[in-house]
Amino acid sequence: MTAPSLFWSPLVATLHPYVPGEQPRIAGLVKLNTNENPYPPSQAVIDAITQAAADGLERYPDPESLAVREAVARRHGLTVDQVFAGNGSDEVLAHAFQAFFCHPGQALLVPDITYSFYRVYAQLYGIELGVMPLDEGLCVDVPALAARAAQGCAGIVLANPNAPTGQGLPLADIETLLQACPDRVVLVDEAYVDFGGTSAVALLARYPNLLVVHTLSKSRALAGLRVGFAMGQAPLIDGLTRVKDSFNSYPLDRLATAGAVAALDDQAWFDRACAAVIASREQLAQQLTALGFEVLPSQANFLFVRHPAHDAARLAAALRERAVLVRHFSQARIAQYLRISIGTPAQCDRLVSALTEIFKAV
Amino acid sequence: MTAPSLFWSPLVATLHPYVPGEQPRIAGLVKLNTNENPYPPSQAVIDAITQAAADGLERYPDPESLAVREAVARRHGLTVDQVFAGNGSDEVLAHAFQAFFCHPGQALLVPDITYSFYRVYAQLYGIELGVMPLDEGLCVDVPALAARAAQGCAGIVLANPNAPTGQGLPLADIETLLQACPDRVVLVDEAYVDFGGTSAVALLARYPNLLVVHTLSKSRALAGLRVGFAMGQAPLIDGLTRVKDSFNSYPLDRLATAGAVAALDDQAWFDRACAAVIASREQLAQQLTALGFEVLPSQANFLFVRHPAHDAARLAAALRERAVLVRHFSQARIAQYLRISIGTPAQCDRLVSALTEIFKAV
Repeated sequence: MTAPSLFWSPLVATLHPYVPGEQPRIAGLVKLNTNENPYPPSQAVIDAITQAAADGLERYPDPESLAVREAVARRHGLTVDQVFAGNGSDEVLAHAFQAFFCHPGQALLVPDITYSFYRVYAQLYGIELGVMPLDEGLCVDVPALAARAAQGCAGIVLANPNAPTGQGLPLADIETLLQACPDRVVLVDEAYVDFGGTSAVALLARYPNLLVVHTLSKSRALAGLRVGFAMGQAPLIDGLTRVKDSFNSYPLDRLATAGAVAALDDQAWFDRACAAVIASREQLAQQLTALGFEVLPSQANFLFVRHPAHDAARLAAALRERAVLVRHFSQARIAQYLRISIGTPAQCDRLVSALTEIFKAV
Repeated sequence: MTAPSLFWSPLVATLHPYVPGEQPRIAGLVKLNTNENPYPPSQAVIDAITQAAADGLERYPDPESLAVREAVARRHGLTVDQVFAGNGSDEVLAHAFQAFFCHPGQALLVPDITYSFYRVYAQLYGIELGVMPLDEGLCVDVPALAARAAQGCAGIVLANPNAPTGQGLPLADIETLLQACPDRVVLVDEAYVDFGGTSAVALLARYPNLLVVHTLSKSRALAGLRVGFAMGQAPLIDGLTRVKDSFNSYPLDRLATAGAVAALDDQAWFDRACAAVIASREQLAQQLTALGFEVLPSQANFLFVRHPAHDAARLAAALRERAVLVRHFSQARIAQYLRISIGTPAQCDRLVSALTEIFKAV
């Protein structure tokens, strides 16, 4: 960090910003470090963007992003007033933290091992955290979390499936938490749900305190387009909209809007791409197990693995020397794990070959 | 406003979100209400976007937006660490308010008549405002503002040229304010500067407390793409970056990045388009004067006018009936003014014809 400046608000020096996975430009790189989709998006998306660019960019986009929200509503059987859209799910999450979790004197409950941006949002908005340890199998400890929530809290945030573990909760557990926390929002971040998880969208009609957040970055292969959305009953969507309209009237540009609608409407591409990633994940899990890794069961587009005989940080460095990037977190409890995004079959083969070579050399 | 929800943070019910100009879909509409550029952007922008879409969207964009920041640095003779880029200048402004103006017990100084989003940001971040009246000619009262700043403040925010008046301050006045407020940031929002104002970028090297904000929405005809940027000495850019990295790692998608770089590099298009808007503005100012309007001198892509014999709200409504949209603000001191964006010559003719018709009918 650079030295704090006289000109900063006092908050700025206290922030510990999120650090995204690196995006290096290395020729022939096998990039399995940021959970992107290894396949290009639907051609319908590219065509829609090309058309939108030709249609003109001199006018502001729709500040309500109705076209995107309608497409989400169609896909998930909701009404448009149950959908909020933003510039990537990170922006949607940030607005949700400010809109729902700022209750002074009460703590927002989050797992100790989860998407590390949640802690950053809490800092940005002055929200106290109640950090709840995962159990020994690195699963969310639902009974402990529900018991703590019932004592009063500012809300609950969960990733389901969780990151970076890849492990998911059944809907019965989500319901337990919703019922333990009836006066506060339970935010379920389903960034990875399309790779085998169970979506809580099915619970929306019954729980006014449920907010479900999705992204087009992973299962729609649009990390480069920045579109995410939240689904919940209308009062929650209203709250998000009030914050958004106090921050940026037009978070989604005309191109992202056109691309998002085309992506959400191309069910055939989506089904094929998700099936391909899931098939590769299952095969890679078997191969890594055969190499001696412990592999957590994954519902996501990545695997979370550790090897009893090889230090994770050293393995990540050795893979990087072979132009294979995976993600290592220097964090208590998971410092011996690697998070490996699922690539194409050829990319997975490159990873397995590199690991085999590394293990031989030791 | 909908009823406040049990689930909202207390702040949410207190917000008065910004209301953007309407974007109706009316056939044959002459849209002079949101200060967009009447010309389509450079073809180089469309080509760059089309290429970027074809190059793939499955990977995250550069979280540092280096390509855009380098293009801004080239254009303005700066280094890349003096440039911050965001998803429209509204997002950049929001981050700046949080990064620089949250000094409890001190007021942020803003003119009473200016871009109305400034008040909204202040609410969103709990910043107290010191509202400084424009003088009788609707110009910023620089001596009064400097005297107030010298007593201590959280900073100063000015639009220069101001909106919705279109009137600009010379750099000597900006320097007076920078010197009156040496320990706090003076933010100069130059959204309209390319239509005849004088940019404070020339002062950056000498004033560590100066932040200048620009947008591609107006002079680059890219309101639909959402790209804005801030320029200042490196410690200010660091402060913005720390807030941004605590909010959204990737505010600029791959398409906006490609389009922005192409736009910033096409100086010939920019010179032509700005000259065309300025020429139309001067002609329209003469025509409106001939129709009896008082026309404030404008350095922007709009005119701020009033008619001694015609109520502004009724005029706006009568124009709307004739499919011509202008902006009217129901606000003290300016309720008898209309803000009219500069259109193509044909659009300006439509406005003048409609006004002539309305005046005949009375």
